[in-house]
Parts: sequence; C-alpha cells; structure tokens
Amino acid sequence: MAVSDSGTASGPVAAVDGDRLWAALMEMARIGATPGGGVGRLALTDLDRDGRDLFVSWCQEASLEVRIDRMGNIRARRPGTKPDAPPVMTGSHLDTQPLGGKFDGAYGVLAGLEVMRALNDAAVETRAPLEVVVWSDEEGVRFAGGAMASAVFAGRFGLDQALALPDREGTTTFGEELARIGYDGDAPCGGEPVSAFFEAQIEQGPVLDAAGTPIGAVLGAQGQRCYLVTVTGEEGHAGTLPMDLRRDAMVGAARMIDALNGLAFEFEPNPVITTGYLAVRPNSRNTIPGQVTFSIDARHPDDATMTAIDAQLRAVLKKTADQAGLGLELTQTSARDAVVFDPACVQAVRDAADRLGVAWRDIHSGAGHDACNLALCAPTGMIFVPCDDGISHNEREAARPENLATGCRILLDAMARWAGTV
Amino acid sequence: MAVSDSGTASGPVAAVDGDRLWAALMEMARIGATPGGGVGRLALTDLDRDGRDLFVSWCQEASLEVRIDRMGNIRARRPGTKPDAPPVMTGSHLDTQPLGGKFDGAYGVLAGLEVMRALNDAAVETRAPLEVVVWSDEEGVRFAGGAMASAVFAGRFGLDQALALPDREGTTTFGEELARIGYDGDAPCGGEPVSAFFEAQIEQGPVLDAAGTPIGAVLGAQGQRCYLVTVTGEEGHAGTLPMDLRRDAMVGAARMIDALNGLAFEFEPNPVITTGYLAVRPNSRNTIPGQVTFSIDARHPDDATMTAIDAQLRAVLKKTADQAGLGLELTQTSARDAVVFDPACVQAVRDAADRLGVAWRDIHSGAGHDACNLALCAPTGMIFVPCDDGISHNEREAARPENLATGCRILLDAMARWAGTV
Repeated sequence: MAVSDSGTASGPVAAVDGDRLWAALMEMARIGATPGGGVGRLALTDLDRDGRDLFVSWCQEASLEVRIDRMGNIRARRPGTKPDAPPVMTGSHLDTQPLGGKFDGAYGVLAGLEVMRALNDAAVETRAPLEVVVWSDEEGVRFAGGAMASAVFAGRFGLDQALALPDREGTTTFGEELARIGYDGDAPCGGEPVSAFFEAQIEQGPVLDAAGTPIGAVLGAQGQRCYLVTVTGEEGHAGTLPMDLRRDAMVGAARMIDALNGLAFEFEPNPVITTGYLAVRPNSRNTIPGQVTFSIDARHPDDATMTAIDAQLRAVLKKTADQAGLGLELTQTSARDAVVFDPACVQAVRDAADRLGVAWRDIHSGAGHDACNLALCAPTGMIFVPCDDGISHNEREAARPENLATGCRILLDAMARWAGTV
Repeated sequence: MAVSDSGTASGPVAAVDGDRLWAALMEMARIGATPGGGVGRLALTDLDRDGRDLFVSWCQEASLEVRIDRMGNIRARRPGTKPDAPPVMTGSHLDTQPLGGKFDGAYGVLAGLEVMRALNDAAVETRAPLEVVVWSDEEGVRFAGGAMASAVFAGRFGLDQALALPDREGTTTFGEELARIGYDGDAPCGGEPVSAFFEAQIEQGPVLDAAGTPIGAVLGAQGQRCYLVTVTGEEGHAGTLPMDLRRDAMVGAARMIDALNGLAFEFEPNPVITTGYLAVRPNSRNTIPGQVTFSIDARHPDDATMTAIDAQLRAVLKKTADQAGLGLELTQTSARDAVVFDPACVQAVRDAADRLGVAWRDIHSGAGHDACNLALCAPTGMIFVPCDDGISHNEREAARPENLATGCRILLDAMARWAGTV
C-alpha cells in the first residue's frame, strides 16, 4: 500500500466551509439523538423521514434538483454544462444503528451537500452533472441484509424482492414502510450510466487515527457473508423438566456462539465473526426456550478463505445442534465478495490529497458500504477520515471537525476534476 | 412417600359438574388464544383484564361476594353460617406464560369456581366461609419475580415495593398497570387469619401421567433462586474491530449460559438451572453487542445444596467475565427456600381421595406456586392432577377432562370438610 510522498499543493477548486459542514452534522444528529450522545435513526422510521425531510430542504435551498427513486433513494442533482452526461455521484446513508453515532453515513451525505454548497458559493460550473445521494437503509437493522437500496441500484438485487423484504417482527415490509414515510418515489432505481461514485466515510476502524493520517484512499473492502440461524428445541417448565430431558434452544445457541468465536481464531489473518442480534422465544424467565434465532456476520479480505470459513461454520453449527438434539435452520441472508475499487478513482483521491497538500495512505475497508455495491456498476472510490480510537456503531463514535473538513475538500476536488470544470 | 392403599369410598358432599368445569376452562382459554393452540395472557395486560372480567361475572352469577385487594387479587367469597370465621381458601392465577397452556393457573381458579357452583346446586352450607382467589401475576413474565401478589398477602414482600416493580422495558410499573386495567382495589392485601389454603394445579411434570395416578397429594416444593445478570462489554463495528481487541458481551453471555448448564450436572440430584430470558443491546446484526442481560432460574429441593449452587454459580460467572474483560452485575431477584406443606392439609387431600375412592400418591412440586407463599401464613396444601407427558409452559400443555373433574371433587371434599358442613 502506498502512502503520500510529497505532492505539490495547489489551490482548491472551491472553498469548503468546515463550520457549515459541522453545523449540518450536528443539526442532523439531533434527529434521533440518544441519551448516550449518539443517534438512533432506524431506516424507514418516522425519525428517518424527519432526517430525509431536513436533507431535502437543504438541497432545495441549494437549488439542487431532487428526485426520489423506487427504493426511496434521494438523488439531489447539480446540473452540469452537459446536462445529459452521466453524473459524478457521491453520498452515503442517513439511517443509523439503534445506538449509532453522529457520523457513520451522515458524514458522507452532508460532505456531499457541502461540496454542492461550496461550488455554488464559488460559482463553479462542472461539465458533467454532480449528484449527492441518500441511499435507503444501509445499516440493515430492521430488514435483513444491509445496503439493499444501493444493491438494487447496482442490479445486484431485484426491486420487487427488496420492496417485499419483511421487517424483523414480520409485521411490515420495506415497501410498506417506504410508502408510510412518503418516500416511495417513482424514479427508476438504477439501469443508467454513472460516470463515477465517490463515498466519504469515517474509517470506523483504528488505522488512520493511530497513524495520525487525515486521509485514507480506500483500495477495497473485505468480503462478507451474513446468516440467520434458528435453533429449535422444546419449551418446558423451568422448575419441573429434568436437565437430562431438556432440548434447550438457549443452551444450544450459546454453545454455537462460543464455537463461532473460537472458529475466528483458526484462520490467519483472523476473519471477524459476530453475533449481534439474538431473539429468544418465548423469552420468559421460567420457561425453557423453545427457539432462539441469531445472526452471524462473517468477513474476510480473501474470498477463498471466506469460502473455507463458510464450510467450517456450517459444520460447527450442525455438530452442536446434533449433539444437543436440537433443530437447526441456517439461512444465508447476504453474501458479498471482496471488493476492489476502481484504480482511477483511488488515484483520483490520492491526487486530490497531493494537490491540496494533505497526507494520505492507502487503506482497506473492514466495513461494507453502499460504495461496495456501486462498484459493480460504476467506477467507484472511497475517502476515509479518522474517527477517534476507531470506535463506530457506538454512541461514543467521534470525529474531529478539521478531519471532516479535509475529507470534504478531497471529495470536492476529486468530483469536480472528474466531472471537469469550465 | 405414601401411595393410596384401599380407603372406603363414601358419597361426595356435593356433585361436581365436570362438563361445566371443562366448558369454563375452554371459554377462558379463548381469551389470549395463540395460533399454536395455547394461551398468551400476560399479567395486567388488556387480555388479563378480559379474563378477570369473565371470572368476576361468573362469580356474580354464583352469588359470590367479590372484593379486589390492593395487589389486584380477586377474592370471591361464599359466606358460611359463621361469617366471621377465617375462610377456607382456594385459587390460583389467570395470567399465563407468553406461549403458555390452557390449564396452568386457570385450572386452580376454575376448579375453585366449580366447587362454589356445585355447593350452590346442592344447597350445601359450610360453617366457615369459602373463598376462591385469583392471585395477580403468578408467572412473573413482565415484572421481575413471580407470585408477588401472594407474596405480599403472606407478608413476604412489601406492598409498596411490589406496586413499584418496573416492567421489563422499564416503561411502567405493577401499580400503574393494575390501575390501567381497573383492578387496583382497596381491600387490604393480607394481615388476616386464613383457616386453610388448598390449590389445585396440573402437575406440570411427568410423574402422575407416567404412573397413571389421577391425584397427587403435594408434600412441598423445591427452593428457588432467581437472578438477573448484566454483562457489559464495548459496542463496536462488526466489520472493523479485530477479534482480539473485542469485549463482546454476547460471547461472554454465551459462555456463561453454557457453563451454568454444565454446573447443574455437578450436583446430585441435579438442580434445574435455566436461562429463559435474554436481551441484547443494541441487538443489531452488524454491531458487537455492548450489553447482554439474562435471567437465571435455579431450583433444588435441598436448601443447603441450593446455597452451594449459589456460591458456585457466582464463581463461574465472575471467572468467565474476568477472562473476557467484561463487566458483570448479578442481582438476585428472588429467593424462596424449599417449602413443606402443612401435614394436616396434605392428609386432608389424601383422606378426600380415599373417601371418594380415587387413587393418589404423594408428590413433590418442581414448580413454584402461590401456595408456596400462602404456606407462610396459613395451613396450606395442593392437589395435583396429571398433564399429558408432563408438558407445561408450552402451547401443547394438555390435561384430560376426567382428571380435571376428579381433582375438583377432591378439592370440594377437602375444603367443605375443613370448613365444616351443616
């Protein structure tokens, strides 16, 4: 991986207003603010709608053309002098984890907005149109599988199938919730040429913060497989059913989760394997659980190793279920091979940093992003900025205003030069 | 333990109508009926109110005097010729597990009602008054600790403390929910003499069904300790935080649950140890859980062994938490020593069975019951009838009409003779 060498600083295409960007982030973070200082703005909830409405109002003030597509993605366009040219896009998501932070997703969206505002202020016109996009439901908390709306845009997932996705409680669907919050737009989702997609994000990992490097040029993202496991035993009275006659789904699930954790240490480099979601049925203190459902999120940068992990994981679950006399149902809810971003886009990020005299380094993404889907249908790159101690998906997620502004400057430079200025 | 010998059958005090008892059970089971054929009628919900209202209407039709006490217990009295004499009481509970059966609790209540109806039909007067009682919230699903309302009656738990009990979500209290459903009565709860308490129940275990014996004379119940465990780690991004840097509350909790299961097999006879309830925070697929809360329900017939189990359990949890760098908070939510029922009440059940020519055997209760609290303030006994395969706390819980009628006949005979007939 390369790190920045020297690079001659040259003037920016337009001046980013770091204070304005920070103020927008803080105002957005009030919608769904949690007592612990984070944000809980789950996809397609009333709070998500409020966040979208705020963003749309800002876009309209900035004279952007706003369209909503069939997946509820918001596309805000700044026309170019060649209005029919494929757009240069940026963006990210406004939905968060239940106890998420202020920056994951919102930074990429509002950095995109700041690019538009800064170009407006400087009266810079681009040849190709620019767009800032809010992708629906990146986090995948309520509906199985994350980043489904960008997956549909990229042609990786069917529109009808995505709209029919049930929520975790099985009481509603993606499409119903989209209509409920008024973001069931009629613009087509995907199927059109995109000149390039650049996504700005906090790293959500410790590398840049530890190195003191303000910019990461992202080379790609590790592969990911997600599963939903249902362990079925037999309910019974906690006081009366002898231990040796039980088929306890909770004990079985516990053994599986411990075994999956151990499995991660059997590969080099370690994959990350996580059970973040678990639900017990009937979830009553004095009833032996009859059914436990839990998620597995497994990621590794090497696809062949990922395939080996998949096989081992299936074997470990089956063995544990068989030994405890439990039923096992394993559903792979999503799978994404490792992503390699477009070399020209990666270079555009490095070049922008060099031009602006900002230190950068190449970096891999541990997390998945909408950009991983966009990479399937357009030249794509990402810009990372540091977050404190690499903490993310946590109310304590934090990032420094100067780093966020720097990332936005790189984004503006890369997009404007890719689109061409007049 | 004794089993029935011969015993001379003699005529009943009054004739129980087994069909009427069955019809009442089936009508009550419609309130909160689940798709799987069971009942979900959680304490102090609208469904619980509907069940209570139905019971009260039946009591009024049977000319019983209905009073509601401060804990929402419903007391329906049939006056005796000595109206100021301490009453002979029976009863159980109408609340159920989330996926409970038709008989656990409801049988004890409606068998008590059938006793009153049968005595009315036969125009039998008793010297002491008789009462059938609905004890609030025996199951303890929504509010920590079960059988709290009978515990208050027996002086084992404070009234104000019980009314202030928060629900699992921490959004309401026992007292608020009681007022909401209109069962915040003003009669005092406890502090009065009770001549005797007899509770009829399905066994909720396999002994009577396997032996083909229709009646169990219950000698006592095993001791029980309940705990709530909170494991605290650090939330993080499932894709970016390396395995060896994680403090994963889910993995820690899984190891604890597996270890607790193993602990049960280190004692003879085995205690039962159950984790029936577990909640993950933030419970999102792609966030490493920062906090997991789970219940432990441990029971053993011997109090000294129970104390040893308590010490081992604490040691196992602490060791697991320390090894994983996790925080641990352990709260004992309830503790009940093993209960020995009153010998005269146990004998009254055996004698009733002998008089009516019904086979019986002595039995221990694996489950806790309101009767375990009543035993602290009044001579108390229980009558068990078989349930199919011992299955309970399960939608498939089932019992045979003829066994339920037989248990009711024993209950009527024991109560009427204890109260004295004129």
